[in-house]
Amino acid sequence: MAINYTGICGSDVHYWHSGAIGSFVLKEPMVLGHESAGTVISVGSEVKTLQVGDRVAIEPGTPCRRCEECRAGFYNLCLDMKFAATPPYGGTLTGFYAAPEDFCYKLPPHVTQQEGALVEPLAVAVHMVKQARIQPGQNVVVMGAGPVGLLCCAVAKAFGASKIVSVDIQPSRTSFAINFAATHTFIPECTSAEEDAARLIREADLGPGADVVIDASGAESSIQTSIHTVRRGGVYVQGGMGKPDINFPILALCIKEVTVKGSFRYSSGDYKLAIELVATAKVNVKKLITNIVSFHDAEQAFKDVKNGKGIKYLIAGPNEKL
Amino acid sequence: MAINYTGICGSDVHYWHSGAIGSFVLKEPMVLGHESAGTVISVGSEVKTLQVGDRVAIEPGTPCRRCEECRAGFYNLCLDMKFAATPPYGGTLTGFYAAPEDFCYKLPPHVTQQEGALVEPLAVAVHMVKQARIQPGQNVVVMGAGPVGLLCCAVAKAFGASKIVSVDIQPSRTSFAINFAATHTFIPECTSAEEDAARLIREADLGPGADVVIDASGAESSIQTSIHTVRRGGVYVQGGMGKPDINFPILALCIKEVTVKGSFRYSSGDYKLAIELVATAKVNVKKLITNIVSFHDAEQAFKDVKNGKGIKYLIAGPNEKL
Amino acid sequence: MAINYTGICGSDVHYWHSGAIGSFVLKEPMVLGHESAGTVISVGSEVKTLQVGDRVAIEPGTPCRRCEECRAGFYNLCLDMKFAATPPYGGTLTGFYAAPEDFCYKLPPHVTQQEGALVEPLAVAVHMVKQARIQPGQNVVVMGAGPVGLLCCAVAKAFGASKIVSVDIQPSRTSFAINFAATHTFIPECTSAEEDAARLIREADLGPGADVVIDASGAESSIQTSIHTVRRGGVYVQGGMGKPDINFPILALCIKEVTVKGSFRYSSGDYKLAIELVATAKVNVKKLITNIVSFHDAEQAFKDVKNGKGIKYLIAGPNEKL
Amino acid sequence: MAINYTGICGSDVHYWHSGAIGSFVLKEPMVLGHESAGTVISVGSEVKTLQVGDRVAIEPGTPCRRCEECRAGFYNLCLDMKFAATPPYGGTLTGFYAAPEDFCYKLPPHVTQQEGALVEPLAVAVHMVKQARIQPGQNVVVMGAGPVGLLCCAVAKAFGASKIVSVDIQPSRTSFAINFAATHTFIPECTSAEEDAARLIREADLGPGADVVIDASGAESSIQTSIHTVRRGGVYVQGGMGKPDINFPILALCIKEVTVKGSFRYSSGDYKLAIELVATAKVNVKKLITNIVSFHDAEQAFKDVKNGKGIKYLIAGPNEKL
Repeated sequence: MAINYTGICGSDVHYWHSGAIGSFVLKEPMVLGHESAGTVISVGSEVKTLQVGDRVAIEPGTPCRRCEECRAGFYNLCLDMKFAATPPYGGTLTGFYAAPEDFCYKLPPHVTQQEGALVEPLAVAVHMVKQARIQPGQNVVVMGAGPVGLLCCAVAKAFGASKIVSVDIQPSRTSFAINFAATHTFIPECTSAEEDAARLIREADLGPGADVVIDASGAESSIQTSIHTVRRGGVYVQGGMGKPDINFPILALCIKEVTVKGSFRYSSGDYKLAIELVATAKVNVKKLITNIVSFHDAEQAFKDVKNGKGIKYLIAGPNEKL
Repeated sequence: MAINYTGICGSDVHYWHSGAIGSFVLKEPMVLGHESAGTVISVGSEVKTLQVGDRVAIEPGTPCRRCEECRAGFYNLCLDMKFAATPPYGGTLTGFYAAPEDFCYKLPPHVTQQEGALVEPLAVAVHMVKQARIQPGQNVVVMGAGPVGLLCCAVAKAFGASKIVSVDIQPSRTSFAINFAATHTFIPECTSAEEDAARLIREADLGPGADVVIDASGAESSIQTSIHTVRRGGVYVQGGMGKPDINFPILALCIKEVTVKGSFRYSSGDYKLAIELVATAKVNVKKLITNIVSFHDAEQAFKDVKNGKGIKYLIAGPNEKL
Repeated sequence: MAINYTGICGSDVHYWHSGAIGSFVLKEPMVLGHESAGTVISVGSEVKTLQVGDRVAIEPGTPCRRCEECRAGFYNLCLDMKFAATPPYGGTLTGFYAAPEDFCYKLPPHVTQQEGALVEPLAVAVHMVKQARIQPGQNVVVMGAGPVGLLCCAVAKAFGASKIVSVDIQPSRTSFAINFAATHTFIPECTSAEEDAARLIREADLGPGADVVIDASGAESSIQTSIHTVRRGGVYVQGGMGKPDINFPILALCIKEVTVKGSFRYSSGDYKLAIELVATAKVNVKKLITNIVSFHDAEQAFKDVKNGKGIKYLIAGPNEKL
Repeated sequence: MAINYTGICGSDVHYWHSGAIGSFVLKEPMVLGHESAGTVISVGSEVKTLQVGDRVAIEPGTPCRRCEECRAGFYNLCLDMKFAATPPYGGTLTGFYAAPEDFCYKLPPHVTQQEGALVEPLAVAVHMVKQARIQPGQNVVVMGAGPVGLLCCAVAKAFGASKIVSVDIQPSRTSFAINFAATHTFIPECTSAEEDAARLIREADLGPGADVVIDASGAESSIQTSIHTVRRGGVYVQGGMGKPDINFPILALCIKEVTVKGSFRYSSGDYKLAIELVATAKVNVKKLITNIVSFHDAEQAFKDVKNGKGIKYLIAGPNEKL
């Protein structure tokens, strides 16, 4: 398909700037980008559900479909996943890209391709909220108010959460969150995790603690505070990635019988639900778009993201008129 | 009821020796003991299911029955729990003890009261295995081969686990485990968690890693190794209690989408299942009994446990003939 | 407490008119009513969370708190349940009523006691939707547009359902539903269950069938149509009560691996969530109130309900000024 | 691969005798058979886990791997499933058969190919027991003591069930069951479902009813009795296929909040577990083999099965020496 828009993800900036993320090291040039929407320009002979001209969001990882994880419905855990812009597989920040039929999701007529490019981070948030099994009436805390944290707030709201506390050390971000989807905000003082947690619970009036805490920051202090914030029998989801090893309040987890779940990318049903949330206006992804730049201005956009400007930058495809 | 036998738990030894466990500090003398079986010697006027002479295992904590946790079936998380030998509530290492009707479990005729005293630690293990949702055919690693770790191996076997790897730094304990219920043993070298995990997986031939890892040790290095041992999408249960905060491989948890669950005491159905496992000979708790001492020799037994001798000591009730 | 308002339920009308519901036969006079809100006028000495003057919704069944079901969190299945207006236990359509502390739920200041009386049927609907495990984005069909069916539509919406199809043989009821919470309506022709199901799926554009079907009618033809309407792997909840035995498409259930769950009254957390849904305006129960009559006009209200007039009648308490 | 042994299933007999099962009507000749083990005689160029000479059990249905059901881990519900000996797809009762790599399961050295042919019906039973979520200590009733019902008893035992009641109208079958895996048997008198259920519960001493009832019969009276036999909050699995519509006790299902699940073929992980149960001797499938006949005697074997003789007939592959 022809790529219309591609969002810049933190991982793209990492590869662009450092040439590596952890053990994933670039050994040769690689096309970046995995948050894209495009237009079908040709289909294979056995394709039945797509035709030329269809506007689609692209799920950018193709699993093997044959391993135990794939066959059990957890294809995000497939070891043979070919994921866009993860070495050695090229990404979607390009003119044209090929994807399997069932990883292309038709956009409803009233959903724009700019919104379509944001389906990818939204699917990440959908997966995190589904891992958390959020139920209506629950109180939810989201650590981190970057794009994924903000989207987690919005998805939690769509799942019926009552209170949604957005936590970030930058007041500009929590201000954005409260206008976007959060009901409360909290700025940690990073004194001690217990003290921050106690203050958070008190200020947001969470009673015995939060039903659910989602970490979308990866920050050590946030994770510590999270475990002290969640109530007995509550759920904590680790979605943010930061240091591989951190100091962690394991005894509190044990005594409170907290359920912790990791969340990695997205899997069965996540893209479908993400598009449904956009189509029904339950999540307004457009609000997250800071700027849309032309393909030739991509480098400046990468610099801006690296410098922490704004929330989400989109890069138009090389054939796209702005 | 009249108490027949009481097992000595590590927590009893802690209170006996140090007068405190964490924030639970003894301010006045307290009767120890919570692993007991007894004989009913009198019943209240509304009691229907018990009569004088009944031989029972005693579930030693009475919840409030009214809070959200109690009403939702998680009474082990009740904040108003009155638990034997947890300040300020006295324990069961005494001549007579009163308990609510529904927390007394009649022992089948062929189950002895010595076995009955071991139902308590077995219920702890049952709860841990249920938190882990072990299914037949799964490969399970149990960290720690003390009484609860050994019982976790046996319960995992009763749940149909295929491979059960008992891990302990003391070879005498893993030797005991392999004769009791484990299929494999592993003695960590504590080089690095990744290396120990890799060697464990290789030696026990666990393929992509263990389906389930249960920690019954509370040891920092065990917990680290656990997370590197569990497979993508696997389950880890934190049952052991040690240091409140430890260095923890949070990124591996996230990327592998591990589910972590704390396990605290026991709850709905655990005692019933524990007795069933003893009655059907699926778990042979008698093997764990190192020694049975008279009530007047209790202090020596506490000293022996503190010195790490044997596995489980029982103290006969003051009216019990040995 | 003093009773402020009580809703009339179909079961009340049954007892009033026939003196029996199935095997529950009245042998002596019984106070009717179980959908009530009241005002605390006196509290027991150990009551901590309530005080005189508190306005509360009353959960009208007190379980034994001691049986396996109660201790496992399924107290609605307690065999020793004392349920208001179910022989031999008197109901709440009276001046004063006593209830345990934890079965009285304080109403937020902006929730009226008339709304409070509707929390009971709303809790029934909450329980049915929770049994169905409705997730955002799912398509839901609700059979029957009486009070509980209508409330199921509203709760399904609060749980994020995308399409909500209200089905009833009375067009006036489906018209009400579409203005209340449904997105689609369907009036069965009762030709054959397969044909009705096929037409329903086609008209509401449900693709491979409904993700969830909830029966709030108890009608044989609705139940048959439901099983043919639910998709492979979908969920069906039986909440409506009608004939004890019906002709049922068991083979379709088997081949499609449908999950069927019965739903009976309400249990842990349902009242709390029902009040939250009213308090946050996610469910507007006031719309269901057809009329509010004085205590002395109760008989006429029973006649009106029996004649199928309106949706929900409230009877003011004897001390309530209208 | 070369086919070594193929078991005869009731569906094979149906097609052989009637040329149809329900809406599946044969329009041209079709190879029968789907319960087979074989030996790899050639592999495709990308096959990595199999080599010539490997002895394998064959999972006889290949799903599309691309639809929502496949991607969610429920490939048994795939509408594009190509299932052996289900028109228009030919079966495995032949000399040679081709299957995808991941649907061939290597047999451990000590598992024979005759046992391998029985992995298919065992996988059916595994799926039914997994749908039932049987836990250790539970009491289970299995309706029907044909091959799948018998295997359900054995799998329930492997899952730790305490009591396993095998129900059949033929005493010879229940006698077989008690020697195979059941702990109790019951022969219905088919007076009324309630009476049969009450007698079953009483005779097997199931207290408040069975935790789990599995139907492997498809018989109307068995299904009715099942719902009256299962306890409040229990689980019922519909695995047997018989009449499409039956008289069904829907009110009892509702009031007791029974969970009903259909069970259709097998899905993710079922074959793997079935082989594990054979390999670890938890299920002795060899006991079910009534007779092994040569390929040229297949017709007589079909006649015997049709006449209800024995339990399971195997037909040797055309190249197999007996």
